[in-house]
Amino acid sequence: MSHDINSIPHRRYNILTGEWILCSPHRTKRPWQGKTEKDTTPKKETYDPSCYLCPGNTRSTGDKNPDYKEPYTFINDFSALLIDSPVATQENGLMKAETEIGICKVVCFSPDHSLTLPLMEEEDITKVVKTWKKEYDELGSQENINYVQIFENKGAIMGCSNPHPHGQIWSQMSIPTEIEKKSKHFKEYWDKNQSSLLGDYLKQELEAKERIIVENEHFVALVPYWAVWPYEIMIAPKKHQQHIGQLSEDEEKAFAEILKKLTIKYDNLFETSFPYSSGIHQIPTDGAEYPEWHWHMSFYPPLLRSATVKKFMVGYEMFAGPQRDITAEQAAKTLQNLSDIHYLKQ
Amino acid sequence: MSHDINSIPHRRYNILTGEWILCSPHRTKRPWQGKTEKDTTPKKETYDPSCYLCPGNTRSTGDKNPDYKEPYTFINDFSALLIDSPVATQENGLMKAETEIGICKVVCFSPDHSLTLPLMEEEDITKVVKTWKKEYDELGSQENINYVQIFENKGAIMGCSNPHPHGQIWSQMSIPTEIEKKSKHFKEYWDKNQSSLLGDYLKQELEAKERIIVENEHFVALVPYWAVWPYEIMIAPKKHQQHIGQLSEDEEKAFAEILKKLTIKYDNLFETSFPYSSGIHQIPTDGAEYPEWHWHMSFYPPLLRSATVKKFMVGYEMFAGPQRDITAEQAAKTLQNLSDIHYLKQ
Ligand SMILES: O=P(O)(O)O[C@H]1O[C@H](CO)[C@@H](O)[C@H](O)[C@H]1O
Ligand SMILES: O=P(O)(O)O[C@H]1O[C@H](CO)[C@@H](O)[C@H](O)[C@H]1O
Repeated sequence: MSHDINSIPHRRYNILTGEWILCSPHRTKRPWQGKTEKDTTPKKETYDPSCYLCPGNTRSTGDKNPDYKEPYTFINDFSALLIDSPVATQENGLMKAETEIGICKVVCFSPDHSLTLPLMEEEDITKVVKTWKKEYDELGSQENINYVQIFENKGAIMGCSNPHPHGQIWSQMSIPTEIEKKSKHFKEYWDKNQSSLLGDYLKQELEAKERIIVENEHFVALVPYWAVWPYEIMIAPKKHQQHIGQLSEDEEKAFAEILKKLTIKYDNLFETSFPYSSGIHQIPTDGAEYPEWHWHMSFYPPLLRSATVKKFMVGYEMFAGPQRDITAEQAAKTLQNLSDIHYLKQ
Repeated sequence: MSHDINSIPHRRYNILTGEWILCSPHRTKRPWQGKTEKDTTPKKETYDPSCYLCPGNTRSTGDKNPDYKEPYTFINDFSALLIDSPVATQENGLMKAETEIGICKVVCFSPDHSLTLPLMEEEDITKVVKTWKKEYDELGSQENINYVQIFENKGAIMGCSNPHPHGQIWSQMSIPTEIEKKSKHFKEYWDKNQSSLLGDYLKQELEAKERIIVENEHFVALVPYWAVWPYEIMIAPKKHQQHIGQLSEDEEKAFAEILKKLTIKYDNLFETSFPYSSGIHQIPTDGAEYPEWHWHMSFYPPLLRSATVKKFMVGYEMFAGPQRDITAEQAAKTLQNLSDIHYLKQ
């Protein structure tokens, strides 16, 4: 073993994407005179008559939401992808394009406008997990749908235009770039070791304990060694599973428990409704076998220093590669020490 | 030739990175109820006593800026990279890290606090170009500096904490991810065609004219066919050059002219001091030959609809891949039709 480099500028290797990230641990001492965000944690009503996601309300297209009591999904009124476009490619010298086909859905997590995942009951989060599972299976089995991206943009700072608790699912014909990168590295490792790259990494993390935030029988939530966002977290099943369709009932519950515990810690970090984008990476639904894959869910939260100061991924990050100011271990320690009880309920 | 797919959801191939971007041209009809930014175009004084970049002022470290009259560069007081770290690697099972060594500099474009590139005189922008050139050469010839990233974060929305006209240079030992991606594609094309991938693309664009925004004898500025950001622009030399160190005096002036014309159009778009991150991609300074490379400068501006509504690159974009709402051709047309005279001077 060599020199400990965790206290000096260094880069860390992301085993799943094959990319490096730059870590500058000494840099948080920098004073911040730049942009601050509004802390948008308003007290919300359980029902908002002007919200297009609340039960019974009419959306801008004229469609009326049912009086739903459980998670409710519908086709996005302004879908970025459409299912009935003609399949075509267009090639003109060095300009190459092709139709993208897909279905975009909105998933309302709860009829209650005032809630967010950390404020929901565990059994209601389990219903969200079941909904994701159902949508993954149903969308994935449709013709021309080869990949299903489940995600949530939470908070105005993450481009979320409605505080009603909801996520989205964009499913499509082609395999997205981020999935292709990971497939490549899962496959290389599998071919060499006949074992799950992420599974083996989790074993190492469970032994080290240093970056683990929450854990139960079936799941672990940790700050990955190669985290990019200041308080980035990955949740992964301990069992080698390729997609959420494989979750048993017990595992669904265990997943919901981890989701609740983790998002409570997040809210407690800066005593704010913590913004993030989260997403599930799992196998394509193109019918091929992907035994090497190990599904996982990641949270990319933008906040760095407080409820109002975020990390900007700009010039250097866009043109060279990601850079972070605190180590994964520092972030993990901070998150580990936070209470398991939501600050609004303490 | 096949079906025209530019009016339906499609994806386009980036020949330089090998990645695809999703384009949903029908989607701008979507109403926007989300976050809006403050339009921060304050009238500025030519000198601000509290600005740590103005001539003669003292910075937080106690260092005092000289009474500079031309572009002024100095080592970043809060450098993300340091030159004197011990070189080491650290490998522990699936966790791999190594020291990153580098030098971070700040480049003040002008002593005048109130200016920005579009408001500067062409001959003063030429001095900025000369400064970039000098820094690229000098930093690049230092031991352990194998890549020099020149960039600018403009505007509070891009994490810029000081409105004084300035950019940054982060130079480092390792070759960044974005450069490696492009090297690969330049090389593959070169080996096959003995010709510049970007040069051949430029020829095609110069013939098509559709995406060209500004052009002079030596340079062209265009919206790349595979643009990600709504009004993304690439400036490239018509001549096959690997790095800005190769610019002749005439070419320096021509580059400055294009920079001024382009940034004037940007400011005119929403009649605001247009925010962006820009950066120059050029060959590593590791001493190897890169005949295949063709340097270029890109501008990634976040604004989509107005001075206060930006495009959020969040959930789908982070987990799957980039998505845009207007086509490159629509963006180009809008930019082409804008005046060449700055709106504050009309
Ligand atoms: O200008 P600063 O304060 O050095 O920092 C800014 O640019 C850096 C390089 O793109 C980013 O890492 C920071 O997040 C951003 O705030
Ligand atoms: O929630 P919306 O309005 O569909 O849109 C939001 O998420 C999308 C998917 O990540 C992004 O493309 C948009 O920029 C963002 O505003």
